[in-house]
Amino acid sequence: MKLEATTVDIGTSRPLVLLNTIDAAELGAHPIDRVRIEHAGQTTTGIVKRTDELVEAGTVGMTEPLHHVRGTVDVTLAGAPQSVRYVRKKLDDIELEAHELETIVRDIHENRLSDVELSAYVSAVYTNGLSLEETKHLTEAMTDVGKQLSWGHPVVADKHSIGGVAGNCVTPIIVSVVTAAGLTMPKTSSRAVTSPAGTADVMEVFCDVEFSIDEIESIVTETNGCLVWGGGVDLSPVDDEIIRAENPLSVDPAGQLIASVLSKKRSAGSTHVVIDIPYGEGAKVESLVAARELADDFKRVGTHLEVDVTCAITHGTDPIGRGVGPTLEARDVLAVLEGDGPESLRLKSVRLADMLLEHCGVDASATDILESGRALERFTRIVAAQGGDPVVESDDLEPGAESTTIRADRAGVATRVDNRQLCDLARRAGAPLDSRAGLVIHRRVTDSIETGDPLYTIHAETPAKLAEAERLAERLEPVRVRSTADALVERR
Amino acid sequence: MKLEATTVDIGTSRPLVLLNTIDAAELGAHPIDRVRIEHAGQTTTGIVKRTDELVEAGTVGMTEPLHHVRGTVDVTLAGAPQSVRYVRKKLDDIELEAHELETIVRDIHENRLSDVELSAYVSAVYTNGLSLEETKHLTEAMTDVGKQLSWGHPVVADKHSIGGVAGNCVTPIIVSVVTAAGLTMPKTSSRAVTSPAGTADVMEVFCDVEFSIDEIESIVTETNGCLVWGGGVDLSPVDDEIIRAENPLSVDPAGQLIASVLSKKRSAGSTHVVIDIPYGEGAKVESLVAARELADDFKRVGTHLEVDVTCAITHGTDPIGRGVGPTLEARDVLAVLEGDGPESLRLKSVRLADMLLEHCGVDASATDILESGRALERFTRIVAAQGGDPVVESDDLEPGAESTTIRADRAGVATRVDNRQLCDLARRAGAPLDSRAGLVIHRRVTDSIETGDPLYTIHAETPAKLAEAERLAERLEPVRVRSTADALVERR
Repeated sequence: MKLEATTVDIGTSRPLVLLNTIDAAELGAHPIDRVRIEHAGQTTTGIVKRTDELVEAGTVGMTEPLHHVRGTVDVTLAGAPQSVRYVRKKLDDIELEAHELETIVRDIHENRLSDVELSAYVSAVYTNGLSLEETKHLTEAMTDVGKQLSWGHPVVADKHSIGGVAGNCVTPIIVSVVTAAGLTMPKTSSRAVTSPAGTADVMEVFCDVEFSIDEIESIVTETNGCLVWGGGVDLSPVDDEIIRAENPLSVDPAGQLIASVLSKKRSAGSTHVVIDIPYGEGAKVESLVAARELADDFKRVGTHLEVDVTCAITHGTDPIGRGVGPTLEARDVLAVLEGDGPESLRLKSVRLADMLLEHCGVDASATDILESGRALERFTRIVAAQGGDPVVESDDLEPGAESTTIRADRAGVATRVDNRQLCDLARRAGAPLDSRAGLVIHRRVTDSIETGDPLYTIHAETPAKLAEAERLAERLEPVRVRSTADALVERR
Repeated sequence: MKLEATTVDIGTSRPLVLLNTIDAAELGAHPIDRVRIEHAGQTTTGIVKRTDELVEAGTVGMTEPLHHVRGTVDVTLAGAPQSVRYVRKKLDDIELEAHELETIVRDIHENRLSDVELSAYVSAVYTNGLSLEETKHLTEAMTDVGKQLSWGHPVVADKHSIGGVAGNCVTPIIVSVVTAAGLTMPKTSSRAVTSPAGTADVMEVFCDVEFSIDEIESIVTETNGCLVWGGGVDLSPVDDEIIRAENPLSVDPAGQLIASVLSKKRSAGSTHVVIDIPYGEGAKVESLVAARELADDFKRVGTHLEVDVTCAITHGTDPIGRGVGPTLEARDVLAVLEGDGPESLRLKSVRLADMLLEHCGVDASATDILESGRALERFTRIVAAQGGDPVVESDDLEPGAESTTIRADRAGVATRVDNRQLCDLARRAGAPLDSRAGLVIHRRVTDSIETGDPLYTIHAETPAKLAEAERLAERLEPVRVRSTADALVERR
């Protein structure tokens, strides 16, 4: 069918082809069908969207990836991309081969799948699982479609936490300790997606985090390490697309998680990696048994990819550190490096750093390196190399001036400090965009509580945000206090 | 967050809320998140879409279902609809309860699910299946969201074919026979979705098929039956939405199929139903065992819903009748009613009509009714009641004048007549929109073939469409002829 190409903007980065309902019926094209568009001797493919109003009969609207298509074009029905057949195969619980997973990854990378098809992929992987072989092949395919770094060192250290724990900003401390011990640790981190602060958001309190690959190389040459945002480097880029379908469904299938993490590590040129797997109520991994299985699978896939993986199974039920939100977590990080700071953050950082040092074959003690001030010195060098102020101290890092402290309305014991509720509250207060917004947690699980004791403080940058967070706080109970003397929580 | 509401048209019937990327980040809203929109004391919910260009920061764009929202509105994050949790539960292979399936069906009906979530529902049902209990509850939920007809008769006959067979236009013949026997059979049928002709498309060759419920009632009062398009009557309306996600994945899970069919039958007020289940290579159901299982499940769910179901398992590998396409199938139908016509169509119609008569407790023979001319007389009364010309004869129904006959290039036996290839060819020739386009099939499986024998004829309304179909025919082999003397198909 001959049609006149026009450009349309409907807010998508997918190659959609808008057909008037009349032309679509004539062509026999249904939504999500593909059409082949031939023009000036070239052929391209788009996903059909039907419309009564946006384009007239006789014309065809092209979204941004197809804006180069001009003039009279010949539109014919095309088959679905090959990968849709493989998605269907996985829905049928049949093991996929290497080339089939490659095709799926390539089609996701090139935006060729519709939301329906992408979601079916995620659903199939979630519900039917991936075998170890499939996970290996998927990891390789995800690595291959992105950029890859190399460092010219036999040992390149790295760590990753599978997330879900409030605070938990151990990475800057570990990088400082490990690089002070002479190892190379070029760390790329993420910004918050659903949390109040990613490591990149916390580091941005100190310095820049967005750098080109060349700039990263010069920072690492100078300091042995870096603490930058990974999103600027295009390592394993399909991960973000897959997460886009996982998030609404709140699924994060193990095989996909392993492939996402290890493809990023491999792309980053890492050779020795510690994976932090927090488990427990409300964490991504609920049971110790599941955490152990995930750890074993991480190690097996790592071996196949020649990335030496070791795993730390940690407590994922309570927050780590006292602060939640970029500035408040930055303050905790710096306090630990200064030799003070929350014990939970210091202890977890030291344990993971010791594991990583040992894993890399370095005989050194994280506690010694911390106490000697060499980790702080290294951290300030990295901050300076990333364009930040190296003389900042933890007391300089002020949280948002608008604040409220929530106090205990009864005496008892803190029986639960809820990661998810704390994250929701910190986000409502403005984190991560308002970098000084967030929470300070005053009590930990098993602490004894008197009536009127402070439980947590909300900080915001504006009165309006504080009021919003307070409204939410009234409906939540992020720090649960159980009276030892009364079985009744409240009567209403 | 206070924003100014504007209307946008991006070709969707979903309640989308377009936020500028800056506002979305401030709000912490990701794609597919929900936001609550408060305005003038009213609250409504929409699905987030982020954009850099379509709306400016400070404004919020509303798609058509939200076009009533005007002025300054307050936008806050809202949770996902409850049904997303139940979809996730089904992905986890946990049986859903009645109220959970009701919630899913209601949210689909009210367009509250994104494509990602809808696809996850379809994927979960496909890969984990539905129990008999779930299928019953789903059927009830699907019935409840649509309109329901009632006829005031103790016995209302109906039939349904699960489809996939070319030609196969048995319905007008069965309705004519069964209503001539004195039964009530108000038949609603579909238009083609991926086939070259639905029963409604075939009937439209004779008369109108789109009527209001009142009009249908008066047609049925006059003639005992009708042959109308179901899409105009809003019976079990979520079916179309679910099909929208099933089609791209080529999945049609049994439980969902049963619920879709029986919810339509129940909504239509049918009490006694014959389900035609064609099976075989290329059909929806591949094996006899699977067809039997499906039949048993249909009957069990029917019993629960007080719809008396009986099933006919039929051959689904070859076409039924000679014509494919609205006019060509109409010609076959009328020829059978006139006492002639293709034997395969006559035989299948008679067998199904006999089953339905017996199932309804009527002692009559379909062959007798056909041969007596009473079925033809009844058919012409229905056509007249639906505004058509009752004196049309099968010879009056001329296919498209542009035609080519494809002939055998070798001698042998017809070993396969491929439904899917024939459908593709008929559509390429213009069916169903060009109602006189389609195919005439000259040979059936096991027929002996001489070199030069006609295999099938393509009809089109324009030379351009004929040429397109011819090009496709060169690449396909819808009627496969195997030489009995030579193992070699061709050498090239």
